[in-house]
Amino acid sequence: MTKYKAVVEYDGTMYHGWQLQPGVPTIQGKLEEALYKLCGELIRVHGAGRTDAGVHALAQVAHFEATWSHTCEELQRACNALLPRDIVVRRISLAAKDFHARHSALAKVYCYRILNAPLRSCFWRNYAWHVKEALDVESMNDASQYLTGPHDFASFGSPTDGTESTVREISKALWTRDSISGLVRFTIEGSGFLRYMVRSLVGTLVMVGRKKISARHFLRILESRDRSKAGPTAPPHGLYLWKVHYPPSHESPGT
Amino acid sequence: MTKYKAVVEYDGTMYHGWQLQPGVPTIQGKLEEALYKLCGELIRVHGAGRTDAGVHALAQVAHFEATWSHTCEELQRACNALLPRDIVVRRISLAAKDFHARHSALAKVYCYRILNAPLRSCFWRNYAWHVKEALDVESMNDASQYLTGPHDFASFGSPTDGTESTVREISKALWTRDSISGLVRFTIEGSGFLRYMVRSLVGTLVMVGRKKISARHFLRILESRDRSKAGPTAPPHGLYLWKVHYPPSHESPGT
Repeated sequence: MTKYKAVVEYDGTMYHGWQLQPGVPTIQGKLEEALYKLCGELIRVHGAGRTDAGVHALAQVAHFEATWSHTCEELQRACNALLPRDIVVRRISLAAKDFHARHSALAKVYCYRILNAPLRSCFWRNYAWHVKEALDVESMNDASQYLTGPHDFASFGSPTDGTESTVREISKALWTRDSISGLVRFTIEGSGFLRYMVRSLVGTLVMVGRKKISARHFLRILESRDRSKAGPTAPPHGLYLWKVHYPPSHESPGT
Repeated sequence: MTKYKAVVEYDGTMYHGWQLQPGVPTIQGKLEEALYKLCGELIRVHGAGRTDAGVHALAQVAHFEATWSHTCEELQRACNALLPRDIVVRRISLAAKDFHARHSALAKVYCYRILNAPLRSCFWRNYAWHVKEALDVESMNDASQYLTGPHDFASFGSPTDGTESTVREISKALWTRDSISGLVRFTIEGSGFLRYMVRSLVGTLVMVGRKKISARHFLRILESRDRSKAGPTAPPHGLYLWKVHYPPSHESPGT
């Protein structure tokens, strides 16, 4: 058995999220189906993060062990030939024995896209949250500066890792606007995230952008550690798992 | 009855093209359904061009006559509330009595997108033709320069307008590459187009880009007026009706 690391892109629109569930299509399920056809046995695929239904990924990372007598490139091509058109393996490389897609990760980067325009768009309907009201991106950045560093994010989500701690460390949280496309984009990088944390942060920061609450009020919500104080959870289809960072020893070249 | 001009954006993936056909979803059909619900009678919608199954539009133009006692903005909002998520009316304005979406058009602009990258993409799967082989955009532009001016395009399509003439006048035909996204884009503007003409030109110009034929050979195909000489027809999902130009008297402000 050889351990492999795979970088996977997917359009989450048609899936019930990453994680295997009986009777519904999931990304993990489709990958395991493809590997079953190729290797003739059940191969468990472990992802870096469990994206929810409708959430996309540019570079989800997964590891698995398989018996495969050809090259990584041939395994990648064979997977891509079997996978549906909305999932693509961008890269497969050999992984160290101790590599674990989730436990070895140093940081994850998520992006959230908002189409901030009066009119909805056919082409962004599954790929960005449509917010009609003008968003003040400067205020959203004022509020987002409170996110960096270690904080207790209990106001914005619940733990998924089996521990009870809701403390996570955020290293970057930045909003930018593309004036041509009307897209407003949030990039957030951290050592880990609670369940619904990014979407709950986005929903609350959009309230700041719409001048419903101030950046100071946002800080008070963060400090309250009270889930009921946060704004609405932003819809899943604007969210993308963008990148997973590993220590240099586990980074494959060119990813 | 008032005459209206509508600018319509659509994702053509799920439709059997623009034109009404019994038993299958079409863009014209969905627009007429929405107007039927709003106005209580069958309202015929006339488009500037009949896009084929899978072809998209950023700004298809249509005209129709209706009895509607509110503003154009209210009619637009009401249509958008009834239309599916992959069709959106970008604008409705009052049209002159003699305006006709197709007959009044001076020129149409089509774009064709190619994802020129080794790997397929989840997100472009319905919106760009994936061509793995390296494309020499300079050679494609060398060949495309032969297209401008009036030419007999019999090699690249058949007439749709009821006449037998295959002469059309092209004012612009240009390839550009976005080095970040890997997208290669063809923009072609002309007074009119034959059926399959843009896709047939793209399929043949991609042969030039792949060094299968030279720009001079492309010219010989054009001059042969022989449909069997052209390359394969490019798939529909890379094609977009981008813009329709009208004389200043028929242009609505802001479109």
